[in-house]
Amino acid sequence: METPTASCDIQIRVRYAETDAMGYLHHAQYFVYFEQGRTELLRQSGVRYRDMEERGIFYVVARLECRFRAPAHYDDVLTLTTAADRLTPVRAEHSYRLMRGERLLAEARSTLVSVGRDGRPLALPDDLYRRLGGVAEPPAVV
Amino acid sequence: METPTASCDIQIRVRYAETDAMGYLHHAQYFVYFEQGRTELLRQSGVRYRDMEERGIFYVVARLECRFRAPAHYDDVLTLTTAADRLTPVRAEHSYRLMRGERLLAEARSTLVSVGRDGRPLALPDDLYRRLGGVAEPPAVV
Amino acid sequence: METPTASCDIQIRVRYAETDAMGYLHHAQYFVYFEQGRTELLRQSGVRYRDMEERGIFYVVARLECRFRAPAHYDDVLTLTTAADRLTPVRAEHSYRLMRGERLLAEARSTLVSVGRDGRPLALPDDLYRRLGGVAEPPAVV
Amino acid sequence: METPTASCDIQIRVRYAETDAMGYLHHAQYFVYFEQGRTELLRQSGVRYRDMEERGIFYVVARLECRFRAPAHYDDVLTLTTAADRLTPVRAEHSYRLMRGERLLAEARSTLVSVGRDGRPLALPDDLYRRLGGVAEPPAVV
Repeated sequence: METPTASCDIQIRVRYAETDAMGYLHHAQYFVYFEQGRTELLRQSGVRYRDMEERGIFYVVARLECRFRAPAHYDDVLTLTTAADRLTPVRAEHSYRLMRGERLLAEARSTLVSVGRDGRPLALPDDLYRRLGGVAEPPAVV
Repeated sequence: METPTASCDIQIRVRYAETDAMGYLHHAQYFVYFEQGRTELLRQSGVRYRDMEERGIFYVVARLECRFRAPAHYDDVLTLTTAADRLTPVRAEHSYRLMRGERLLAEARSTLVSVGRDGRPLALPDDLYRRLGGVAEPPAVV
Repeated sequence: METPTASCDIQIRVRYAETDAMGYLHHAQYFVYFEQGRTELLRQSGVRYRDMEERGIFYVVARLECRFRAPAHYDDVLTLTTAADRLTPVRAEHSYRLMRGERLLAEARSTLVSVGRDGRPLALPDDLYRRLGGVAEPPAVV
Repeated sequence: METPTASCDIQIRVRYAETDAMGYLHHAQYFVYFEQGRTELLRQSGVRYRDMEERGIFYVVARLECRFRAPAHYDDVLTLTTAADRLTPVRAEHSYRLMRGERLLAEARSTLVSVGRDGRPLALPDDLYRRLGGVAEPPAVV
């Protein structure tokens, strides 16, 4: 029910191995960048995703959507903006904008679900939820 | 304006390198599989995508959407069904279902745009368009 | 001290995502293929590597060497021959030849070490060792 | 016949997608890092590899060798040292050391060959060769 407004910019330089025979950054690689963006957005909130996994909480991707506007090339320096759009104790929605200078290359959205070691949905512990910007549900008014 | 109904099933075994620390097939890798599905769907229509590129016609991905239902693991044998949903001379829409046995793992859709060597939209030549199931526009009725 | 002579051929078709801007199969991808070759060589011996991992035995790569003779391209169908050259209870040496038709594309060698969940060297259990072609050490002659 | 002593350090943070089910940075990914190291080493010499390709000069990998000493994990920050060990107009030899803090994770060597658009060996133009540290052959003494 929350709308955290956190966002985070990172710079990524396209590696040669990430291009394809068309000479473009391969489209599947964008999702690797988006995941890197989420890692850094979490870190900015004081949460290391690797620590979450050590506590047995995993974010799995439930949905991805991406519009590709213009290609990127080897050695381009890109700016990825990752924003946390919506957070509940078991879901997180993010949006992404990938730019090269002023040029928009891609826009995307994702939905993650938090699960436990057994792969079943698991609510974030309170401390984690609050650090990520979640607001505790108010007690029901009688 | 056409609705080709072509579809194609391929089997893919998950490679170790395609998994991640969660022990799952990494979500970006699904899009690599979908691309492989398109290659085989084209081949089934008598078109080798590499020949298209040699003629200077490239399919670039304009939009992707995927819902992840259940994870896949190393060494799983998956069945990918790729269907051509809609074809115009400059766009192609596909849908995908990735299964492990009876279990649905992912559903996706993509939109491709055909471009020339300069990256600008380019209509498929007639022979190619027809082979892919496109129907020539009827002459306008006066 | 053994020289198993097992070898295994598999066919691999180069995916678009595996090429780079030079239009070639990217050199790092060869090692993904070699790993796939090892999976199939083990399977041919009746061993599923995923079962090994479930038993807590992991093969980690300790050394790789590859000579690249000629490039491969998107959609090429390659034949990979993987051979088990030498096996001890804690090490396995393999060699690889990657061909396109009669043309040799790459030759490689690898050394793997078997480790436990803690990452420390761990001898293969006897049943596994024998199935992979290892010969039990003769009892020391008095 | 030259021994340039140029070397270059870069920091790389391991991405989630680069790990495998063992929880380690996948061994094939090391070679992607090494390539990134070469790109930055060239840049330090004032050469952008993308400019080389635009001039029609490509470095292809002819040989790779890597010893893996210890695993890396998701989110680790690694230091890669790339050194140019030997340069001739058609070959370049590099060595690599990948560290996490004081811990050596991998050591590697590569040999590259410069080729033209046709894939045949092609000597570096003089200006490029000198910028990379190559020393012109002295004229033969009569």
